Amino acid sequence: MLSPADEKKLENFLEYVKDNATVELGYPVAFDLDYRSLAPFLAYNLNNIGDPFKPCSYKLNSHKFEREVVSFFAEMTRAPQDDWWGYVTNGSTEGNLYGLYLARESLPDGIVYFSQDSHYSVRKNLHFLNMRHIMIRSQANGEIDYDDLRESLKIRRDAPPIIFANIGTTMKEARDDIGTICQILDDLALNRRYIHSDAALCGGYAAFLDPRPSWDFEDGADSIAISGHKFFGAPVPCGIVLARRGNVERIARAVAYIGSFDTTITGSRNGISPLMLWYTIRSLGLKEHKARVERALEIAAYAETNFNLAGLDAQRNPQALTVVFPSPPKHVCDKWQLASSDGISHVICMPHVTRQQIDELLTDIRQAIGEPT
Amino acid sequence: MLSPADEKKLENFLEYVKDNATVELGYPVAFDLDYRSLAPFLAYNLNNIGDPFKPCSYKLNSHKFEREVVSFFAEMTRAPQDDWWGYVTNGSTEGNLYGLYLARESLPDGIVYFSQDSHYSVRKNLHFLNMRHIMIRSQANGEIDYDDLRESLKIRRDAPPIIFANIGTTMKEARDDIGTICQILDDLALNRRYIHSDAALCGGYAAFLDPRPSWDFEDGADSIAISGHKFFGAPVPCGIVLARRGNVERIARAVAYIGSFDTTITGSRNGISPLMLWYTIRSLGLKEHKARVERALEIAAYAETNFNLAGLDAQRNPQALTVVFPSPPKHVCDKWQLASSDGISHVICMPHVTRQQIDELLTDIRQAIGEPT
Repeated sequence: MLSPADEKKLENFLEYVKDNATVELGYPVAFDLDYRSLAPFLAYNLNNIGDPFKPCSYKLNSHKFEREVVSFFAEMTRAPQDDWWGYVTNGSTEGNLYGLYLARESLPDGIVYFSQDSHYSVRKNLHFLNMRHIMIRSQANGEIDYDDLRESLKIRRDAPPIIFANIGTTMKEARDDIGTICQILDDLALNRRYIHSDAALCGGYAAFLDPRPSWDFEDGADSIAISGHKFFGAPVPCGIVLARRGNVERIARAVAYIGSFDTTITGSRNGISPLMLWYTIRSLGLKEHKARVERALEIAAYAETNFNLAGLDAQRNPQALTVVFPSPPKHVCDKWQLASSDGISHVICMPHVTRQQIDELLTDIRQAIGEPT
Repeated sequence: MLSPADEKKLENFLEYVKDNATVELGYPVAFDLDYRSLAPFLAYNLNNIGDPFKPCSYKLNSHKFEREVVSFFAEMTRAPQDDWWGYVTNGSTEGNLYGLYLARESLPDGIVYFSQDSHYSVRKNLHFLNMRHIMIRSQANGEIDYDDLRESLKIRRDAPPIIFANIGTTMKEARDDIGTICQILDDLALNRRYIHSDAALCGGYAAFLDPRPSWDFEDGADSIAISGHKFFGAPVPCGIVLARRGNVERIARAVAYIGSFDTTITGSRNGISPLMLWYTIRSLGLKEHKARVERALEIAAYAETNFNLAGLDAQRNPQALTVVFPSPPKHVCDKWQLASSDGISHVICMPHVTRQQIDELLTDIRQAIGEPT
């Protein structure tokens, strides 16, 4: 039993969370979903230890739901029939670490190429895994500079390349084009190669965009990480990582050799987050999911247009939910929880974002910079 | 909205979980706590991105609860005043990976020593981090063989040792004695050294044992990982990692150098698990927590005695909750979810385990091996 003072503290915190959720436009987290109906499971200790496709002596696991979730994403990412494997992670840092780990084990002499707009965790992961790497310039829109990539690859054709492609950079939601990257690799006859698709941000909706971005297994990816707490709105950080089965079997052998058979990164694994993702997939259905994508794109277009009408020099990549603009004064960034970097800020129009919120933010900005609202 | 069929599927799964929770004696997970009162937070996306001691522009975080949780554990582990740092992890694989990462950054030329009874994830972590390592023999009770450790250290005095100490091995709950290990290191004048305490299992109650095991910062540890879903009974895998601040600052500088300031392993971090741990700490209080430890030790003693009276050759380390015995037939292991390895199985007497459950398991074993019950 909590003391009355602690009860009050928890209640106040819930109020604080509720209030701040209404003024959050800067992070890629969808607030339109509610997972309270899964509360009965908080009375138990679900733990998805080990491989979701293998039996486990601890029975309080949601492996069967996890398998449905990863199968759904295998279809969304056009994974090769019967040649894929995956699991639900604690988020895309783990998914990206896993992809890079597979790449290192496949190509121990490989060099990782990634753009300067990649998420900060990529360098941390590479440092962790002790992998050689080269940072490639980005274009102004945040997409990798293909000419710089080509030139860098050309002078190191003796080392197999590992490409870390961003399918939605953190700041500008730029998407590196895996088709174009494969073309460059083909031109240079770089057949020993590995491509990891960091689709943390866009993986939840890229399959529904038209034209479809070049990002998935059929486009040339060898592994893909997708966040579950971003567009899919899970209330705790989680994600999905998918990879070609052959590469996973290679590390399974390596891991067995060192005395372990566990192909996942963590041992004990969250058993509620797969239930959450299953819940969203099943309750929304493909049709409603697609409708969420369309509504979000509409709001993003609305924000871009209105920011520009207000003279704010807003920019947006094609079919992106992210609108970038010069950073407003600090108190506006604080209120709306706008992530800012190098003088620019962004709003990310996740499905819960409304026109009214965009209007209010715009009013706040104009007031702050002394313009008539 | 879920379809009626999906609703039914979820209901059935809840029943399955409920039923199987009554016959689970093999894993170190406490079932005596209930976290359903935190359900209102499942309507929001709490995310504890980054360092819990630093401000963050995303306001839907439970950093202040997280700081209370790690402070509680800093006290339990006698962390040096004003010279510690920590955060809530996704479990002890992450905590151990973090400790080893700090060790590698502190002593890049170090060699890791760990006993053959260490958790399988240790080798996976070392492979990940590309660290030189030597496996040391274990004694029959699962504790590291100090003579073998001393001999191994003696012939490699040019490389600084990194000791990975088990405070509760997975199978036998053996505790490596950090005091004894420090004595060996001192004898060999190995002053450049790092000791990580893997207290995943016992960290939740070691501070309450009398005599107190030699396992914490005052005993000589440089970092400690503790699980939150084991003795603390959180319904999702989580944990606490604590380390000396100086070592964390070293990697913070290294990480800043590579363009990132995040001192944690994952980027987005679970915001509900710190709330869960806070809830347990505050609602139990130290007195009730201590009482849980005593009850659990009583049941473990009861199991050991009665298994032996039944001629089962049961064994238990001093003040351990784990009772080891020759593996019973497979259907008994399956029913009671007993983890088994090399012909032995164990029950782990977490606070929810009752005498009645121990009696029932014993009856099942005697029936299975054809003895009169």
